[in-house]
Amino acid sequence: MSEVQPSVSYSFTMRLYIKNKPGMLAKILSEIADHKADPGAVDVVEVEGEYKVRDLTVSARNEEHSKAIVEAVKAIDGVKVRNVSDRVFLLHLGGKIRIENKVPVDTRDSLSMAYTPGVGRVCEAIADNKEKVHSLTIKENSVAVVSDGSAVLGLGDIGPEAAMPVMEGKAMLFKEFADVDAYPICLQTQEVDEIVNAVKWMSPGFGGINLEDIGAPRCFEIEEKLKEELDIPVFHDDQHGTAVVTLAATINALKVVDKDLSDLRTVIVGVGAAGVAITKILLEAGAEEILCCDRSGIINRDNIDELNSSKKWVAENTNPNNLSGSLLEATKDADLLIGVSGPGTVPIEAIEQMAEDPIVFALANPVPEIMPEEIQGIARIIATGRSDYPNQINNVLAFPGLFRGALDARATDINEEMKLAAAHAIAECIDEEGLSEEYIVPSVFNKEVVRRVSKDVKNAAYDSGVAQRPQP
Amino acid sequence: MSEVQPSVSYSFTMRLYIKNKPGMLAKILSEIADHKADPGAVDVVEVEGEYKVRDLTVSARNEEHSKAIVEAVKAIDGVKVRNVSDRVFLLHLGGKIRIENKVPVDTRDSLSMAYTPGVGRVCEAIADNKEKVHSLTIKENSVAVVSDGSAVLGLGDIGPEAAMPVMEGKAMLFKEFADVDAYPICLQTQEVDEIVNAVKWMSPGFGGINLEDIGAPRCFEIEEKLKEELDIPVFHDDQHGTAVVTLAATINALKVVDKDLSDLRTVIVGVGAAGVAITKILLEAGAEEILCCDRSGIINRDNIDELNSSKKWVAENTNPNNLSGSLLEATKDADLLIGVSGPGTVPIEAIEQMAEDPIVFALANPVPEIMPEEIQGIARIIATGRSDYPNQINNVLAFPGLFRGALDARATDINEEMKLAAAHAIAECIDEEGLSEEYIVPSVFNKEVVRRVSKDVKNAAYDSGVAQRPQP
Repeated sequence: MSEVQPSVSYSFTMRLYIKNKPGMLAKILSEIADHKADPGAVDVVEVEGEYKVRDLTVSARNEEHSKAIVEAVKAIDGVKVRNVSDRVFLLHLGGKIRIENKVPVDTRDSLSMAYTPGVGRVCEAIADNKEKVHSLTIKENSVAVVSDGSAVLGLGDIGPEAAMPVMEGKAMLFKEFADVDAYPICLQTQEVDEIVNAVKWMSPGFGGINLEDIGAPRCFEIEEKLKEELDIPVFHDDQHGTAVVTLAATINALKVVDKDLSDLRTVIVGVGAAGVAITKILLEAGAEEILCCDRSGIINRDNIDELNSSKKWVAENTNPNNLSGSLLEATKDADLLIGVSGPGTVPIEAIEQMAEDPIVFALANPVPEIMPEEIQGIARIIATGRSDYPNQINNVLAFPGLFRGALDARATDINEEMKLAAAHAIAECIDEEGLSEEYIVPSVFNKEVVRRVSKDVKNAAYDSGVAQRPQP
Repeated sequence: MSEVQPSVSYSFTMRLYIKNKPGMLAKILSEIADHKADPGAVDVVEVEGEYKVRDLTVSARNEEHSKAIVEAVKAIDGVKVRNVSDRVFLLHLGGKIRIENKVPVDTRDSLSMAYTPGVGRVCEAIADNKEKVHSLTIKENSVAVVSDGSAVLGLGDIGPEAAMPVMEGKAMLFKEFADVDAYPICLQTQEVDEIVNAVKWMSPGFGGINLEDIGAPRCFEIEEKLKEELDIPVFHDDQHGTAVVTLAATINALKVVDKDLSDLRTVIVGVGAAGVAITKILLEAGAEEILCCDRSGIINRDNIDELNSSKKWVAENTNPNNLSGSLLEATKDADLLIGVSGPGTVPIEAIEQMAEDPIVFALANPVPEIMPEEIQGIARIIATGRSDYPNQINNVLAFPGLFRGALDARATDINEEMKLAAAHAIAECIDEEGLSEEYIVPSVFNKEVVRRVSKDVKNAAYDSGVAQRPQP
């Protein structure tokens, strides 16, 4: 496995007292270079007697690496390390989002318009016609980012408090990428019915619900029940966001290798929330042969009654020839392999026996099912969930535009038509001449993505009959 | 009853096409003057042929008044009214608050620090030590403004959607007055246990819960249960905010008339959420004789088993001589009358028979229990809930500073000590020389108020042992 690169997500700032003599800073920087870390800003804070005080920022690979660097700098004669501050923790202090008033309420007049007594007429207007809640309150632009903290990133069941930084981060992405006002709500329960009730009861002020990091198979039932109960979109991003971007990458990869989705043999490794959703969207998009593998091998219909409800659905809807066996059986002559499982779960042999022009999406994060370096020259197209390799499959390409489009149409649902529209819109952000093995997914910072996705999703909402806002 | 004055809460802007000839604008303005309305800005938009296009803003008394003015202007020869826009509704369009990111997430580096992969370490730190959720997320500064829409302003049970504009307005006040990040949550249930569960489940990311506009007697049980369940402050503003400001006004009124709280006979008209809370805080502050009246007269212990739980508490804790009879029996020789009921419920005779130097707080809003004009010269001190009379008793004097102080101390509760501290802090914002019959309550725009309240509340939190943040 290749060495992990230094990253700002492990960056820290040291306050150093450095003896005033030639060559000291060079010594420090060469120590950092020896540790293969990245030095960043080097600021002079002040000069104190025989010492120069500097703040030096360094990106490391991980926490041990950070500590080793600090120790090495401490060991240099004439250097004192007075303070080490972790830049990531500094950024999170006090939270990452805030509320802002659209107009000030600092005079008698503004107070009586925004609050009592003026607000009373607005309340009455909504009481007379509940539809007006969309235009006269933040419901028009608001999304609750809801988690129970049961399946957070790769960290697992860390609880609602520890999930908050992720949900706040998600709210930031909603704002930055699509100007959606999202608020993080982490729930102190992991019971399906309690989560459903909590979301249902809090829903009147929200225009959409983004479920996040809720473990399978509970997430399927929660989403299904909420979709039935609510007349606003309910969207589990770990399932559908991943599925939409994966379909977009698939569409573009097939253009590069000149294959057709309906002729494809696809193997999906991992049958959690993402695996099931990817299976569904590929079938909807026209895929015919999909084999899903969990730890015990290819899912088939031989012992179907022993499967949980989502795997039962998989058994009934994939694997047309009811194949059985290990992952290595599945990948024989496969065209596309999609990993949504865990680090290192796919051996090289699995890739070596694929059909011509193998496409491999190894999406486990941060460590993929198989490292791209290992299958360079074997797989023709490789995508991962990481930003330090080409073709990053990142949900942020989908959910901001999906919700933007849904809110703009005042959609009652984010339905299959809207998800397919989003996938095609993402794929089309790269024109055919631009496509290559290393460029099947647009950059997350490509502003064209959210514009196209939201527009096409909005149109799909109208075309499929779920848009409630009268068309202008 | 005196005539209601024109107000910006009934203001509208007309787009007028006015024939280009002398005296036209004067004609329009004189029509507005005849209707006793207030003209505001008069803008020229453009000149179109023989017409000058103007936007004219007018404050009216109520909706019929607005319509009458528009009709009168329409009737002027040479004037066309093209559009009438209600300024209050314009201000509410799309909601009144938004989310803002504290740092941009527009580069690879910022994304990997605020979101994955950097955020993972912050999550782990909280998973290791749950206390850290306070400092590393918005929990430190966030309050949920929760309502079930059952008792909104004077409008009653208008439901969660129609309650949203008030809760958003409340969030604005939290921000403007105390830099608290409050988010409105309107619940689609009015069941006590469901409300308790909804709030409990959503609580991990919030630093405090402000209950709002929930009807009595459910509000008492909901607050009590939540206080037991949660380790963050739970505060029903309609009860305690009103009680705190009323106590502050009482403290200052007694200085003006030179009476003592312990010698006072107080009559409270209305035994809803506010009435009960005012009773409690006055007793805690040292009042001894309080008579509470509802529609059927003075609450006493004669038929105590027929009373609901909150009125039973009132019967057991007030009216030491177990008096019975109507409101007119109660106010004989009373020193202080506090109305928290509805418009016009207190007759002049009730005030006429009070003791020397009567103090009357008629807090029903917008129309008080008795209009100040009617008892001018009878009552020595009069306070209302309105901004257009002296001595406005307004919760905004209390709740921002109370929550600011509680959050700053990371208090697990807003307890009686903190509420009493808040009342005294508000009262002390007017120094003894400044006090007068017409100035017992500081202005809501007096910035000193939130500073003093938050400081004293924070100190009271430490003194009473509910502060969790280590003192610096």
